[in-house]
Amino acid sequence: MSLFKKYEDTISKAIKALHDRTFFAAYPEHPSPKIYGETADADGQAKFKASIGKKFEELKQENPEGWAGQEESPYLGDGLKISYPTFSPDTLINRSNKAFHQWRKVAASERAGILVESLERVKNRFFEIAYATMHTTGQGYMMAFQASGPHAADRAMEAIAAGYEELKRFPAKALWDKPMGKYNLQINKEWRAVPKGISLVVGCSTFPTWNSVTGIYGSLVTGNSVIVKPHPGAILPIAIFVAEIQNVLAENNLDPNICQLAVDTFDKMITKDLAQHKDVKLIDYTGSSAFGDYLEAIPGKTVFTEKTGVNSVILDSVDDIDKVVANLSFSVNLYSGQMCTAPQNFYIPQGGIKTAEGAVSFDEFAQKFVDSINSLVDNPKAGPFVLGAVQNKKTYERVTEAEGLPGKVWLKSRTFENPMFKNARVATPVVVEIDGSKKEIFSKELFGPIALLIKTKNTDESIALAKEMAMKHGAISCGAYTMNEEVREQIADEMALAATPVSFNLVGGIYMNQNAAFSDFHVTGGNPSGNASFTNPEYVSKRFTWVGHREPVKG
Amino acid sequence: MSLFKKYEDTISKAIKALHDRTFFAAYPEHPSPKIYGETADADGQAKFKASIGKKFEELKQENPEGWAGQEESPYLGDGLKISYPTFSPDTLINRSNKAFHQWRKVAASERAGILVESLERVKNRFFEIAYATMHTTGQGYMMAFQASGPHAADRAMEAIAAGYEELKRFPAKALWDKPMGKYNLQINKEWRAVPKGISLVVGCSTFPTWNSVTGIYGSLVTGNSVIVKPHPGAILPIAIFVAEIQNVLAENNLDPNICQLAVDTFDKMITKDLAQHKDVKLIDYTGSSAFGDYLEAIPGKTVFTEKTGVNSVILDSVDDIDKVVANLSFSVNLYSGQMCTAPQNFYIPQGGIKTAEGAVSFDEFAQKFVDSINSLVDNPKAGPFVLGAVQNKKTYERVTEAEGLPGKVWLKSRTFENPMFKNARVATPVVVEIDGSKKEIFSKELFGPIALLIKTKNTDESIALAKEMAMKHGAISCGAYTMNEEVREQIADEMALAATPVSFNLVGGIYMNQNAAFSDFHVTGGNPSGNASFTNPEYVSKRFTWVGHREPVKG
Repeated sequence: MSLFKKYEDTISKAIKALHDRTFFAAYPEHPSPKIYGETADADGQAKFKASIGKKFEELKQENPEGWAGQEESPYLGDGLKISYPTFSPDTLINRSNKAFHQWRKVAASERAGILVESLERVKNRFFEIAYATMHTTGQGYMMAFQASGPHAADRAMEAIAAGYEELKRFPAKALWDKPMGKYNLQINKEWRAVPKGISLVVGCSTFPTWNSVTGIYGSLVTGNSVIVKPHPGAILPIAIFVAEIQNVLAENNLDPNICQLAVDTFDKMITKDLAQHKDVKLIDYTGSSAFGDYLEAIPGKTVFTEKTGVNSVILDSVDDIDKVVANLSFSVNLYSGQMCTAPQNFYIPQGGIKTAEGAVSFDEFAQKFVDSINSLVDNPKAGPFVLGAVQNKKTYERVTEAEGLPGKVWLKSRTFENPMFKNARVATPVVVEIDGSKKEIFSKELFGPIALLIKTKNTDESIALAKEMAMKHGAISCGAYTMNEEVREQIADEMALAATPVSFNLVGGIYMNQNAAFSDFHVTGGNPSGNASFTNPEYVSKRFTWVGHREPVKG
Repeated sequence: MSLFKKYEDTISKAIKALHDRTFFAAYPEHPSPKIYGETADADGQAKFKASIGKKFEELKQENPEGWAGQEESPYLGDGLKISYPTFSPDTLINRSNKAFHQWRKVAASERAGILVESLERVKNRFFEIAYATMHTTGQGYMMAFQASGPHAADRAMEAIAAGYEELKRFPAKALWDKPMGKYNLQINKEWRAVPKGISLVVGCSTFPTWNSVTGIYGSLVTGNSVIVKPHPGAILPIAIFVAEIQNVLAENNLDPNICQLAVDTFDKMITKDLAQHKDVKLIDYTGSSAFGDYLEAIPGKTVFTEKTGVNSVILDSVDDIDKVVANLSFSVNLYSGQMCTAPQNFYIPQGGIKTAEGAVSFDEFAQKFVDSINSLVDNPKAGPFVLGAVQNKKTYERVTEAEGLPGKVWLKSRTFENPMFKNARVATPVVVEIDGSKKEIFSKELFGPIALLIKTKNTDESIALAKEMAMKHGAISCGAYTMNEEVREQIADEMALAATPVSFNLVGGIYMNQNAAFSDFHVTGGNPSGNASFTNPEYVSKRFTWVGHREPVKG
């Protein structure tokens, strides 16, 4: 049975889910032994531990030109000393060019089948990937499992489904039959979905699989060969994905170089060499705006970026202030604010936040917020796991620097000892009050656990500031609390114009940081935080070109 | 009845046609009195004649800041002296911004209905538009009628249909209902298709409506306000479209500035001022590569271009050489080679073109080609109407210069007296033989009636050159003649990689210059001849952003 036949139903369901946009998951998000097996967690952990200090020899890329790897665990405070095969940009490009001409001729349906099969293989390694993610990104265990495993696989499945649908959007052949009066002009027409060429996927240090697999799978399903260039600080999680893709390719007598891993080191990065190469036609990137802007400006490339943004929370009126505070303080603590969707700017009217029992003043809110953060941080059963560790030193330093911002420091960042990892790099959130007039302070992303409480004249000013930030500096998420229908629509409309999705009145176990595959478009592509969206039709259709040939029917 | 209800069936049929890609036309292409009325042609001509020397006062754009117009008729050899209201870029932008916020709130279905209604109004003016097109572009009567009237209206309908389909691709609302074990997490989600803002559509001098309406209607249906900046040499045809759009807008109590005409003059062009303006988010452009490249590089804009290209004909083997020659000579003569799809480089193997009766030598082909061109040119019932007139002096000069190219001049360009227009600017095709090694000569577009017969080693070299030209310099069309299935697939595959559609073995009444709405994607967007395609899903989906808001279901 062909792999397409094997997964045809899965792919159909995924395509339907893309359109329904209600809840759908191809991979269970709970690390339950009932689902994944009794020993899956322990086995995965053991496998991760065994990889430390070794060569990663799973890739099918022949004749390595070197071995390198500089990953460090934010939990262990030490290098992982895993080395990966390295290749010069020329070798990578030459192999990718060769592989491209094989892959592009594989039927779209078979490509889709092969790719789903690779996800099924990766599923068996979700726990290993979880530990690899913890010890490169600093994510807590649960996030590391979910984000790098099932959620990433769902995002990959979404890209396969969206790509496959676009490839089938127009007929392969049609008879064009034009009545001309006395006769019909008959032309046989055919349309080919021609992949663009080599696709470069540049990873980030905080979400090494979740943010990369959509580009990888989106490019592969549409027939492009892919070079995966991980962040030098977070290689192992995506290396496992690439190894499994290569396994399935090889089993199907295809060149494993259709999807290559391109490892580099901090001292000698190869991203620019690859990106600038004339044969690289597609670039996916997650990271800083400076580098993203550089990539977007390279002529002749199709570039998909997720860059930095300034995410806002607009507080107008609430039903239950304590539930709101609990929800928001969790959002700030979660992975120490190192999510692209984490809130940073909290706009609070100087007159306070309206409730049925009267206004909660700015100071009251600030104190509740601080108390809630402290109570989460100081809960030994929650704090260490929710906060995780800080991926890199720069983020750590930025948190300390934030205490020097011109405003009242409501909460200083602290460290605490993670009971499982004595050397973990930990920083609890810093909370600073900033006056709404000091726009220069809050007009940029302060990546990490940094919350700014911004005092505005009123909700109109809050909305105007949140919109301005999003339009000028980008935004990936926005939280808003209002019990007033008119204000709600005002926020929905103004933030929509700034291409920013709004989560309204979130309380309980759902947070503005979270974006679900098959439902939430992650990044809209409509403001400076990025030019692309997971996974809208453009995200895949831009990876190939429709070319139509025609010939008259022989008379 | 709403205009959407009135045209719902029309729009559904157009969407279906987009997917079937077999023959479909919303507007009849034949200027038949039975279809358009007995007096339609005479009335249209009279109306055009009456507009000469006058102010064009049909637009609903208030308080003109000036009046200007510099159109010249290539047939009359004289200025039309029609003047149009002019406005500063600031006025245009301010009005467009204001109109945008009204238009974006009109339901997508009603926008589509209003736009189809405008096409129905334009239909009543196809003949007037035809004469306006003749006397600005130099097109022959039949092409002027078809290209600027029904074919343009079909392309506009295609953009409306494609845009409407994309706007309805995802649900406006959905309940996201996630099983969490003991309870379900329920989130109400909604998705808004948010238009990008002001859309600038920059026209060209040769196809003032056909090349502009897709951008205009594509932007309007997706909720953007539009500023139409015609080429100063070809305003009237598109001014009539804009006037009719404004009429329908006004009748529906909408601001006519939703679609404005922005006339300028050769000595003071306003295109750059408009394109660079921060509020202009979308730009459509047809014209030179230099200006197109400039527009594509402006940061923060979504740009759709059709630029210059080098179109090839690959001659390998034929069934009937005389039929092939007749087809190709017509393609070269048609509108004096001033179509973006006209062939320029003819690749002929030094060993000749294979036929069942043996090879036709390079020289034999060249002589037949020259004879066929002469016979068409010298046929008083065909020549003047097929060739039309040369739009501008530069093209005319380029044709003469071509005689100085380093190779045998098989045919010099001539002029002849058009029986209806004594002062018409006429230039018949020049045919020059170029050796395949002299790549620098044929590596650029030589716009106008210029045919280069390029002697290659063999068909493999012909294909390689055609592909290289397309990849490096762009190509919008390609003709190929081969009776060999393997060679056919080789051409189909190689030219597909160069994102160039191939017309195989055309003979009789169908020409490589022609691209049909609802079937042929015009320009693929995959090579340097342009970054966009009429009308693929991206062409409309890039004009708006999906933004999703969400809120938990109240417990």
